[in-house]
Amino acid sequence: MNKITREKGQFKVVGTRVKRPDGIDKVTGRAQYGADLVVPGMLTGAILRSPHAHATINSIDTSEALALPGVKAVVTRADFAALDDDEMIDIADNCLARDKVLYHGHAVAGVAAKDAQTARKALKLIKVDYTPLPHVTDVDAAMKPGAPVVQSGRQEENVQPEHSENVTGYCEFGHGDVEAGFAKADHIIERDFKTAAAHQGYIEPHACLASMTNDGKADLWCCTQGQFNVRSLCSAILDMEASQLRVTASEIGGGFGGKTTVFIEPVALALSRKSGRPVKIVMTRDEVFRATGPTVSSSSTVKIGMTKDGRITAAHAKFRYQGGAFPCATYSFGAQAAFAAYDLEAVKSEGWNALTNRPKEAAYRAPGAPMAIYAVESVVDELTQHFGLDPLEVRLKNAARENTKAAYGPTFDQIGLVATLEAAQKHPHYSAPLGENQGRGVSCGFWFNFGGNTCVTMNLNDDGTVGITEGNPDIGGSRASISMMAAEELGIPYSDVRTIIADTSSLGHNDVTDGSRVTFAVGLATIEAARDAIRKMCGRVAKIWGIDEDAVIWEDGYAKPSGPNAGDFEPMSIKEIAAISSNTGGPIAGHYEVNADGAGVSFGVHLADVEVDPETGYTQVIRYTVFQDAGKAVHPDYVEGQMQGGAVQGIGWALNEEYIYGEDGVLQNAGFLDYRVPVASDLPEIDTVILEIPNPGHPYGVRGVGETSIVPPLAALSNAVSRAAGVRLHELPMSPPKILKAITDRG
Amino acid sequence: MNKITREKGQFKVVGTRVKRPDGIDKVTGRAQYGADLVVPGMLTGAILRSPHAHATINSIDTSEALALPGVKAVVTRADFAALDDDEMIDIADNCLARDKVLYHGHAVAGVAAKDAQTARKALKLIKVDYTPLPHVTDVDAAMKPGAPVVQSGRQEENVQPEHSENVTGYCEFGHGDVEAGFAKADHIIERDFKTAAAHQGYIEPHACLASMTNDGKADLWCCTQGQFNVRSLCSAILDMEASQLRVTASEIGGGFGGKTTVFIEPVALALSRKSGRPVKIVMTRDEVFRATGPTVSSSSTVKIGMTKDGRITAAHAKFRYQGGAFPCATYSFGAQAAFAAYDLEAVKSEGWNALTNRPKEAAYRAPGAPMAIYAVESVVDELTQHFGLDPLEVRLKNAARENTKAAYGPTFDQIGLVATLEAAQKHPHYSAPLGENQGRGVSCGFWFNFGGNTCVTMNLNDDGTVGITEGNPDIGGSRASISMMAAEELGIPYSDVRTIIADTSSLGHNDVTDGSRVTFAVGLATIEAARDAIRKMCGRVAKIWGIDEDAVIWEDGYAKPSGPNAGDFEPMSIKEIAAISSNTGGPIAGHYEVNADGAGVSFGVHLADVEVDPETGYTQVIRYTVFQDAGKAVHPDYVEGQMQGGAVQGIGWALNEEYIYGEDGVLQNAGFLDYRVPVASDLPEIDTVILEIPNPGHPYGVRGVGETSIVPPLAALSNAVSRAAGVRLHELPMSPPKILKAITDRG
Repeated sequence: MNKITREKGQFKVVGTRVKRPDGIDKVTGRAQYGADLVVPGMLTGAILRSPHAHATINSIDTSEALALPGVKAVVTRADFAALDDDEMIDIADNCLARDKVLYHGHAVAGVAAKDAQTARKALKLIKVDYTPLPHVTDVDAAMKPGAPVVQSGRQEENVQPEHSENVTGYCEFGHGDVEAGFAKADHIIERDFKTAAAHQGYIEPHACLASMTNDGKADLWCCTQGQFNVRSLCSAILDMEASQLRVTASEIGGGFGGKTTVFIEPVALALSRKSGRPVKIVMTRDEVFRATGPTVSSSSTVKIGMTKDGRITAAHAKFRYQGGAFPCATYSFGAQAAFAAYDLEAVKSEGWNALTNRPKEAAYRAPGAPMAIYAVESVVDELTQHFGLDPLEVRLKNAARENTKAAYGPTFDQIGLVATLEAAQKHPHYSAPLGENQGRGVSCGFWFNFGGNTCVTMNLNDDGTVGITEGNPDIGGSRASISMMAAEELGIPYSDVRTIIADTSSLGHNDVTDGSRVTFAVGLATIEAARDAIRKMCGRVAKIWGIDEDAVIWEDGYAKPSGPNAGDFEPMSIKEIAAISSNTGGPIAGHYEVNADGAGVSFGVHLADVEVDPETGYTQVIRYTVFQDAGKAVHPDYVEGQMQGGAVQGIGWALNEEYIYGEDGVLQNAGFLDYRVPVASDLPEIDTVILEIPNPGHPYGVRGVGETSIVPPLAALSNAVSRAAGVRLHELPMSPPKILKAITDRG
Repeated sequence: MNKITREKGQFKVVGTRVKRPDGIDKVTGRAQYGADLVVPGMLTGAILRSPHAHATINSIDTSEALALPGVKAVVTRADFAALDDDEMIDIADNCLARDKVLYHGHAVAGVAAKDAQTARKALKLIKVDYTPLPHVTDVDAAMKPGAPVVQSGRQEENVQPEHSENVTGYCEFGHGDVEAGFAKADHIIERDFKTAAAHQGYIEPHACLASMTNDGKADLWCCTQGQFNVRSLCSAILDMEASQLRVTASEIGGGFGGKTTVFIEPVALALSRKSGRPVKIVMTRDEVFRATGPTVSSSSTVKIGMTKDGRITAAHAKFRYQGGAFPCATYSFGAQAAFAAYDLEAVKSEGWNALTNRPKEAAYRAPGAPMAIYAVESVVDELTQHFGLDPLEVRLKNAARENTKAAYGPTFDQIGLVATLEAAQKHPHYSAPLGENQGRGVSCGFWFNFGGNTCVTMNLNDDGTVGITEGNPDIGGSRASISMMAAEELGIPYSDVRTIIADTSSLGHNDVTDGSRVTFAVGLATIEAARDAIRKMCGRVAKIWGIDEDAVIWEDGYAKPSGPNAGDFEPMSIKEIAAISSNTGGPIAGHYEVNADGAGVSFGVHLADVEVDPETGYTQVIRYTVFQDAGKAVHPDYVEGQMQGGAVQGIGWALNEEYIYGEDGVLQNAGFLDYRVPVASDLPEIDTVILEIPNPGHPYGVRGVGETSIVPPLAALSNAVSRAAGVRLHELPMSPPKILKAITDRG
């Protein structure tokens, strides 16, 4: 169903590059992040973590710690509620280990003390009796029968004989006769791939401040992508009523999916409940690496058949993901996203999840998609090379379009893949000459996008300016884009609107800021809330004029008489209506609550030029261009920022970033010096080209843009490196030693 | 119009004495008051105040202060916006003096510095060149021609020849032929009265923390009775858009009307704007006394005629109020309230306001009514004594009832005065014997009550518990009473509801917590918001059941099929509906915005027994009972608390409290040691009797209860003292020296 009500050329505010509302606060240090709140009587919380990758906890003796002067409370898993839901038990067990520690750094106990020094001392006085167990960190090793069992009783129902009981999930998508399809191919390539776990690398470590009283009421301030989800999880884990827990999201220094769940928050609440004092916990960077949620590492096998003129005849992929010590669902997203860019007659995509002795994965920007699409786009590229075809031509020939039945089930609506591929083809970048040791890689990218539960309230202030209350932490500029959509719909200047992020007691439930959902879903709800307010304003004016409500229309911030009454009355501005609202019935507000659907999928194409130094294996990215369908780009600066940011994270993942485990199951690079994210000096300017194919599910045609851009860099870089180095790599990250070895092996 | 939808016997939650939700926070010190918020980089603000009662400001030199290391900003009135509205100019001029200082302690400049010591040093370096002017602090002196003119050009349009230009307002109410009425009287008494200015005496001094950035966006945390009004005033004074100023009300340590306006808030914002840093200002108690808003002092003349059987034939009163250096409207409330308890054929009530060199008055619990009714009830009592009649009988004989045309205009709806008088008559207190030097006083009291602009949002949490968002700081227990009404309407336990006070960006405009409006108006809006949510819940369930929406009814927290569908489906609980809301359309909320009317007036009767020591003039209150019509008492503990608290404040006003000015126009008792409020050891237990005459303007029959109770004590005590001491006093406070003098003068 096409919901678009405003089209190209009709926008006055949307599409402009207004000033960001949080800029000054962030630049001057006035923005309040997770660790910035201070309250009287506050204690410092600290967390004891496992020194083993895998061990049974025989006993925990907290008596000495408790006896240390200045220590006000110690908590263990026993301080959490008895839970019956598996997923909730997992989340609680990850916050504080139950019977076993499942990875190095797994939280075991929490302490609240008068200061950090005392808290750290107390941690050393907690005596945990462990029996170490064998461990496994690699996904392929974990899936083999005989592998150390991370958690028993969690295996997938019909676990295959070639798999261990670490396999907790399996899924399958596709359609058509794959074997028949392969029979039609002129060439078939099947390859195995591996990708490493990467961390979101957000600048701000997790931090929270919890204050709970013994009547069961609590306030929690924390750095999160979803205060409502924090409330749901913490109230379950602490056995509280949701209404009694008020969660306020601080300003957020990055999340990228990593702040969609809880780690320290239930511990801080339990410590506050026990001590009767407010408790603040701030993670160190080391803790963030060891014990939050990096993305999965993966192992895949992709087989694709192609005719010599570049038509894909069949495709079959197997994706094996490990998401750490607890079951996760990312494998399914990967298996679904893998072939989304292609219109295929025969396709099969399978996914598995395996437990390992690693931290529980959290979402990371388009979770699951980058590693799956990396494998698919690598094989497509190799086939393209095999036949000597143009990479973009091959993708265009097989591209998903409107009405394509996607491999994961649905039939696509209006989508922007072809437009994006064509834009890449026409761009000067694609035809620019390359030098020695240089190569150009291409990859498509895809993300589903999401709508979800959303509440927005629009309040008309007494001076005619407008407040928008929404419930999603602003990570990528949503306060600006939401204000812009409100201003657009109301026909007033952007500067008359201020959007704030409500706490959980001030607004109805909002799903987490994820799935690239906010500009789409909150935007949609904002437009509908504005329409609700417009209806009410027109109703008030109709009463004043003594005419029918339907005879009052809204235009450019004014209520105007229309139809037979046109011209009978002077239009009334929003400011005039606000000024007299008290005399016409009271304050005026618009509201909208919805579980939004129609998010509209998103496609992108990246072009990457690299130069590989054959003597060191070092890769320099020399040119990079992102093409992406943004639907209507509400604030192009932020859209470009998302496209650039995703590309940079993908480049880091492709070239450098990885969780490196020793034989002992201990993470060896838990810091930004050893876990190397790309910095400005590593990168060229990331060029961006926004395509605007309207999403029919949104009044202004808006699509989510935040996630797709991290998907293509993995294959784009791998394809570029393979062409530059003359040897194809099948493993990420493509660090210099690996590239050098590949070059040397080739001889 | 009778809106009552739930009557006696139908309540399950309303009328019970549930635990207060803020108790633990307040007792443990965890509640965050105005001065409790701390943010990084915060400066300390301080205010330079006038050493003169009245003076022209020739110049202000801030250069030396600004040069002091650690001083980050200095502001004067010139830093405020150019304003054109008189009322707004007055508020701004009161926050920082413009051309003249109008009272001792009037703010002249503000300083923000790195710490309090530096700020205080800087104040001393600001050079203000003053030309002192003659001053006037007494209302009668101020009204006389030739009195020092406090502000020129503000006089009432038709200023009478016997009045100076300090008279800024006049009003007249009444009906009937007063002269004819007096002619019918058997006895007429005319007396002059004086009352002193009293301070609300809230425990918490004014405090705020302002943070403004140079893009015109600001956040303000402050102790206030009305964050929305603070926003309106500050945004005007600072020339900001309301949407860009987010005001959060802290927990409040008392207000009683004194925190309905701004004093330090615009100064803190201006300092923050200028310094680029957050600025906190906390008043000292001395500043609170000298430069916030005590109530008016008054001078009145009341003339009443009565027949020998106790029927009032006519009444004429003149009320002269001074509300400090700026025009105020309290005189009109006093003139209106004066005769509200009486059903009179002929009545005239006049009021005047005069400017003096005192701080601008603020509201104080039933503003204007206590001093007017004190005078009226004193004369009625004297007439009763004259004829040897029973005081309650006389009041019953003349009592206002349903359909009485009140002296101030309206015709009363269902009111509780007669029931209250009868309850007092039947109470053992009224017939208890009195000893030597003891006397019993009676007085009626009245307050209009108020509705006003109100917004409430009710959100259904995902576990089926409920959040209420309202916008009025909770001074007298509104979080409890609002939660109770929500629970009542929804049919769920009180503990499933949490009510919070939203900031100005999270909810639509709400009028100030005043006029005893909150339990009435916010309660009404809460019930309507709950009904809105119930309609939506029934709609969701109707869809699930596939039946008509009207066939689903709501009972005791369950949606049930009714009519022809009764019994067809298992009732669905609110928790079940919440759990699946995501699948039935999204989050569920109820909203209501209204300018509420139908508040319903409130009457009370107080009985006071005192013993006067004839040797010292010291008065001991030995027994005190409050009878008041509360409409439906939502939470009787809080209602009783309001009745007791009002009585105690009235007792203080009657016996001890007063602003004492020296010849130099300087307040001589700006501290709790010299301005003596009654403490527990000064008082007997205040007994309370709640009458419940339903207010037809509220679904549950609720009336405001907060203000009426401060009205009767002044006359009740005066009448009791007069009877105990055998001599009638006409001036408050009745401090021991005054009583002793009266006794001595009588001989």
